[in-house]
Amino acid sequence: MTEVLDLAKRLIAAPSVTPATGEVFDELEAMLAPLGFAVHRFRAGHAPEGPVENLFAIRPGPAGSKHFAFAGHLDVVPPGEGWTSGAFEPKVRSVPGGDLLYGRGAVDMKGSIACMVDAVAGIATDAGTISFIITGDEEGPAIFGTRALIDHMRETGHQPDLCLVGEPTSVHRLGDMMKIGRRGSLNIWLEVEGKEGHVAYPHLADNPIPKLVAMLAELDALVLDEGSDWFQPSNLEITDIEVGNPATNVIPHRATARLSIRFNDHHTGAELSERVIEIATRHGGAARPVISGEPFLTPPGQFSDIVAAAVAAETGLNPEPSTTGGTSDARFLRAVCPVIEFGLCNATMHKRDEAVAVEDLAVLTRIYRRIAMAALAS
Amino acid sequence: MTEVLDLAKRLIAAPSVTPATGEVFDELEAMLAPLGFAVHRFRAGHAPEGPVENLFAIRPGPAGSKHFAFAGHLDVVPPGEGWTSGAFEPKVRSVPGGDLLYGRGAVDMKGSIACMVDAVAGIATDAGTISFIITGDEEGPAIFGTRALIDHMRETGHQPDLCLVGEPTSVHRLGDMMKIGRRGSLNIWLEVEGKEGHVAYPHLADNPIPKLVAMLAELDALVLDEGSDWFQPSNLEITDIEVGNPATNVIPHRATARLSIRFNDHHTGAELSERVIEIATRHGGAARPVISGEPFLTPPGQFSDIVAAAVAAETGLNPEPSTTGGTSDARFLRAVCPVIEFGLCNATMHKRDEAVAVEDLAVLTRIYRRIAMAALAS
Ligand SMILES: [Zn+2]
Ligand SMILES: [Zn+2]
Repeated sequence: MTEVLDLAKRLIAAPSVTPATGEVFDELEAMLAPLGFAVHRFRAGHAPEGPVENLFAIRPGPAGSKHFAFAGHLDVVPPGEGWTSGAFEPKVRSVPGGDLLYGRGAVDMKGSIACMVDAVAGIATDAGTISFIITGDEEGPAIFGTRALIDHMRETGHQPDLCLVGEPTSVHRLGDMMKIGRRGSLNIWLEVEGKEGHVAYPHLADNPIPKLVAMLAELDALVLDEGSDWFQPSNLEITDIEVGNPATNVIPHRATARLSIRFNDHHTGAELSERVIEIATRHGGAARPVISGEPFLTPPGQFSDIVAAAVAAETGLNPEPSTTGGTSDARFLRAVCPVIEFGLCNATMHKRDEAVAVEDLAVLTRIYRRIAMAALAS
Repeated sequence: MTEVLDLAKRLIAAPSVTPATGEVFDELEAMLAPLGFAVHRFRAGHAPEGPVENLFAIRPGPAGSKHFAFAGHLDVVPPGEGWTSGAFEPKVRSVPGGDLLYGRGAVDMKGSIACMVDAVAGIATDAGTISFIITGDEEGPAIFGTRALIDHMRETGHQPDLCLVGEPTSVHRLGDMMKIGRRGSLNIWLEVEGKEGHVAYPHLADNPIPKLVAMLAELDALVLDEGSDWFQPSNLEITDIEVGNPATNVIPHRATARLSIRFNDHHTGAELSERVIEIATRHGGAARPVISGEPFLTPPGQFSDIVAAAVAAETGLNPEPSTTGGTSDARFLRAVCPVIEFGLCNATMHKRDEAVAVEDLAVLTRIYRRIAMAALAS
């Protein structure tokens, strides 16, 4: 327990608001090198989404052995205001029920990475090949982070057989939920052009707003699906409308809106984009889709059984195999091998006074060690 | 012709972007006093819509004679950019077809006021009582302009029998249109409150946009009426929608919109307001109406016959009795007596290089003189 707490503190103490660079990677490298890892650090990409700092570390097992990977990110979201103690000054405070470690990244996800390191410290080299796939840009654009790491692994022939992402998936208690998939994510910008004019002479103008309203009403009424085996129903939200016309007696010349669609494995981003473009065009407008991620799924089976068994052994809980929530870098890693996300409790992630139960760090270390050992033995 | 052109130039040369004060009123007073008018100038109202400068001038006729009023405004809309010569430097330039007088207010409506003055100069005092009802705020909020003049007339017992407003009602040729009424005008601010949240967890949020969209779709589909004897159908325009949510992954907490309704004599502002409030409330929102003006009508009859005969005598045209277009101060004056609007060609009003045909000034002077004489004799 002392060891993983110390590792977590060292990572938190290195400020790393997204995109993370330098010091926090130095700390992780200094932790992994003594454990026998070959650490490769590199920068990828260019402005405005880059360059991004990434780290790939590998400790090879015997020839022909399995390769298990831990994946995650060292960048954190900005701390914001109002912390009880400094966001980058890790501090343990006692509360009823135990000790909490406070600091930005405590659960998302420097705490998890500390657990990964401490877990591996207890695994013999001959158990198999273990790697760390760690980016400095997951909370940001994520264009040159995990995707660049996957390119690097492909080029160097280091492709894991199974990968565990350390995102904070637990909800009420450590171990109550893992993520076996994530929905896809798609944002679409809508626009209708009209012709400006005076409200007293509407026949000389062409108001774009009624067209946009009819378009949005049709889009809002879409039932994309009823859900799938492992996913909840896909969902479309209208997230913004903007006309920007301050003049009460003027018919505006343009109206815009924005959609966010979270979709399951019944769909692809391209197919949904085409559908929205068709509706927008039919109502006299235009649609510009940006696909953030396709859905992915690691169907329940051997890997989820390994995770569930490890969790049950240490906590007595049976983690729910969920596909809810936002996107994560697991969507990229799924192209390489089966991926499951499992980590700390997410109640304080992205909030002020982010904190992890010190006891959870010890338990998660043991869970991660069990998962790695079982994965390598599978 | 020389006289009215000179009067128009003097008024244009006194800059009077709304609200007008001082110099331009000094000029008008200097024109009216020598014609035997008692000129009363006063300021009305308080910030932010006031104070506003107004002028009431009266030349009493014999006891018991009729009282005919000219009404109008000395304020002008801002000139904007790109004038060929200075907006407040009246300039005559020859073009194919005749001379044009350029300057802000040339047609709306310093040119018309010059015609009124010159018209009255040719009418004997014993023809009857003539007055000028002139405000410095018609293009602005119009709260303390003509309404304050009406209060003043009521208090002093000077209430005209007929009133002609000099707005530029002609379209293609001087004399082709007069206004016998105007639609009412109503702006309504709509708002739906929801609950902010993350698009990945829509069940924890309450998106106000679908409610606003449904509300607007119902409002846009309303058929208010099919028109009335002298009015075109009432019309509702959605003029703005605003959510102001920059975050693609956030469900916003509020959505707002604005309507503009131009309505005929089938409706009152209060009744339409109630109707929109009912619809807004049913869709989970709220509506805040602001009535700018009720519709008014001077039904075709004796007064419109007088105007039409004067126009026909000078131009050969039969002016169309119209109720189209925006609001004007005639909506207030109609509470006092029958009101008709008739004036110059409006093609360049509120635009850069606003201009009036010099010949039109002479013709309008004669038309105004005929109208006043016939009204006093009626
Ligand atoms: Zn994270
Ligand atoms: Zn005007």
